[in-house]
Amino acid sequence: MTAKIIDGKRFAEDLRGRIADHVSRLKSEHGIIPGLAVVIVGEDPASQVYVSSKAKHTAAVGMNSFKHELPADTPEADLLALVHQLNADPTVHGILVQMPVPKHIDPNNVIEAIDPAKDVDCFTPANVGKVQIGLPGPVSCTPLGCLMLLRDELGSLEGKHAVIIGRSNLVGKPMMQLLLRDNCTVTVAHSRTKNLDEVVRQADIVVAAVGRPNMVKGDWIKPGATIIDVGINRMPAPEKGEGKTRLIGDVDFAAASEVAAAITPVPGGVGPMTIACLLANTITTASLMNGLTPPVDLTA
Amino acid sequence: MTAKIIDGKRFAEDLRGRIADHVSRLKSEHGIIPGLAVVIVGEDPASQVYVSSKAKHTAAVGMNSFKHELPADTPEADLLALVHQLNADPTVHGILVQMPVPKHIDPNNVIEAIDPAKDVDCFTPANVGKVQIGLPGPVSCTPLGCLMLLRDELGSLEGKHAVIIGRSNLVGKPMMQLLLRDNCTVTVAHSRTKNLDEVVRQADIVVAAVGRPNMVKGDWIKPGATIIDVGINRMPAPEKGEGKTRLIGDVDFAAASEVAAAITPVPGGVGPMTIACLLANTITTASLMNGLTPPVDLTA
Repeated sequence: MTAKIIDGKRFAEDLRGRIADHVSRLKSEHGIIPGLAVVIVGEDPASQVYVSSKAKHTAAVGMNSFKHELPADTPEADLLALVHQLNADPTVHGILVQMPVPKHIDPNNVIEAIDPAKDVDCFTPANVGKVQIGLPGPVSCTPLGCLMLLRDELGSLEGKHAVIIGRSNLVGKPMMQLLLRDNCTVTVAHSRTKNLDEVVRQADIVVAAVGRPNMVKGDWIKPGATIIDVGINRMPAPEKGEGKTRLIGDVDFAAASEVAAAITPVPGGVGPMTIACLLANTITTASLMNGLTPPVDLTA
Repeated sequence: MTAKIIDGKRFAEDLRGRIADHVSRLKSEHGIIPGLAVVIVGEDPASQVYVSSKAKHTAAVGMNSFKHELPADTPEADLLALVHQLNADPTVHGILVQMPVPKHIDPNNVIEAIDPAKDVDCFTPANVGKVQIGLPGPVSCTPLGCLMLLRDELGSLEGKHAVIIGRSNLVGKPMMQLLLRDNCTVTVAHSRTKNLDEVVRQADIVVAAVGRPNMVKGDWIKPGATIIDVGINRMPAPEKGEGKTRLIGDVDFAAASEVAAAITPVPGGVGPMTIACLLANTITTASLMNGLTPPVDLTA
């Protein structure tokens, strides 16, 4: 068997198209222009790339994009003051402070300062709790992207056994909530799990989110399983030239592809979904802030 | 093998003793008398029994107990006004509104009105989220009680495979968070799970919380497993006299006892832990509200 490759790049394009339609509708029917504010402190090159990409995609779907660049030595109080100003700004429906922030700033204080109504990363405890309880609100972007790909691939997830490898606050734990809500039996495995290969071998759905290149082997995969590889590991690639690198996932793609029914590639799988889901969350928060029901195709 | 019976009643007594010691210390060292306010709307007999029991135990450990009894036709606005008054009252460190509330009152509005700092039931989204993220705060009472019994019985839970049956907001989902935090591999099973018996048979730890009498059979249990039975099902017991009832759990106790290493009985297992953990949470919130570190033996 050779697995179907799940094309996250294309799905994300389609999703952004649907988001653009929702933006048009919010404008024409309700006079609302969703606005996403992105704050970056310092000049980390990777963060700069992410933030530019977010701003570009935000504008491309017709939303207002607000970019705030602060110097690396910005005092925490000044950053919090900016967050409070964005909280109070009625043209802003989503606030994202690019992580990591410089070491002299406590990220928990930043997260706590963000109005949960505008917390499009779903970092605040109140929004994390809402996902568990099943109340409407923004949903962690990467897990939401994984869920959308799984629903698109499999239809109903009911009764499927999903094994999540990794229990991070960003991916593993919210993923567990979403799969449970979609009626999967869910197992969360991690670094302390015994016989990980046997645990994974039971999975109809594998979500790998550990950050260890090629950790999940081909013979861990149940024939016909669907594999979502969240890992993005940058590896030296001397064959591409001196100092060159390439991205690989947490799953041994070549071997797993021989066994699985479907698998996300790295790059081009989950990666492109994260920013698209950030935009989706901004539609959700803009809708909720205006007393409208968020579009069902943009959330869990 | 005949399983050890986990004596929740005795553990809860010991726990209340430790709580009383912490109350004394808060008084003598910090001048703080922890206070728990319980609100009941209407005259549901079972709720009356719970509320009286909570008040009695609260006073017995040396805390202030505040009981507010409102008539069944109390308007929602009046109940919310009382909650706001308790939020503002510095002698109150925990607020519990006994559920269910009468039908004309939306329980979500009540929960949202409670200051998360005083939410000793851990019902508010912010506190639910804190448990997932791993931030200090109150923890859902029944799962906290189960965790304490498991730690007492097994010591470290690291690497054990825990299977939780049931995914309620009150028990299953917070239990999953706590066991994950204690380094278990965690599987959550529920009504849509296929081959439930096979899933349970892998468990080193079984937490049954579905509310279906004797649903978990003896031959589903792995030899040597530890069983926590959260179910409290009231059954007719004509052998005790006409109209008499008895309580049984979700696990077929007699059969499971032949296979498991340890098991909680019903009654006398998890049940007594819930109120004790409510008092423990009140120590936690009273400590946090006063800038003190909560006692580690009273929380997750």
